Amino acid sequence: MPFAVTVHVELRPGIADPQGATIERSLPALGFGGVEGVRVGKLLRFTVDAIDEAAARAEVDDMCARFLTNPVIEDATVIIEALP
Amino acid sequence: MPFAVTVHVELRPGIADPQGATIERSLPALGFGGVEGVRVGKLLRFTVDAIDEAAARAEVDDMCARFLTNPVIEDATVIIEALP
Repeated sequence: MPFAVTVHVELRPGIADPQGATIERSLPALGFGGVEGVRVGKLLRFTVDAIDEAAARAEVDDMCARFLTNPVIEDATVIIEALP
Repeated sequence: MPFAVTVHVELRPGIADPQGATIERSLPALGFGGVEGVRVGKLLRFTVDAIDEAAARAEVDDMCARFLTNPVIEDATVIIEALP
């Protein structure tokens, strides 16, 4: 059965985020004040076909560890929903 | 008061996603089957200081439209939570 998967890939706390720092530095010049701690991550969405939710989660966790993230510097949060 | 903001930036439906297509093509060679429709977006997190949630949302919506996204090809979803 199909599952809708969302994966949030974010840099671990303490890992430098130059992309976020650049956004944060640029905002005041555009008139946006009071913004702090900008962090930029990736958002992946896909469907996966598996026999049940546990199997889907196991496959996605393995994909994250081996391919979708760099586990040394990134954390992944996996959200799985059954599709009708 | 401070608000924690999460912004999901995703390509609009129908816009080609070469990064997602590349991931999708690579997965079978790594032993991951049954994955379809891979779409890659951005996940931004930051804190914003505003007088209330409506003001925070207005500032973030304006940031998204003018700076954080390309409204022609991307959709933004804004999640705002009050911080203690």
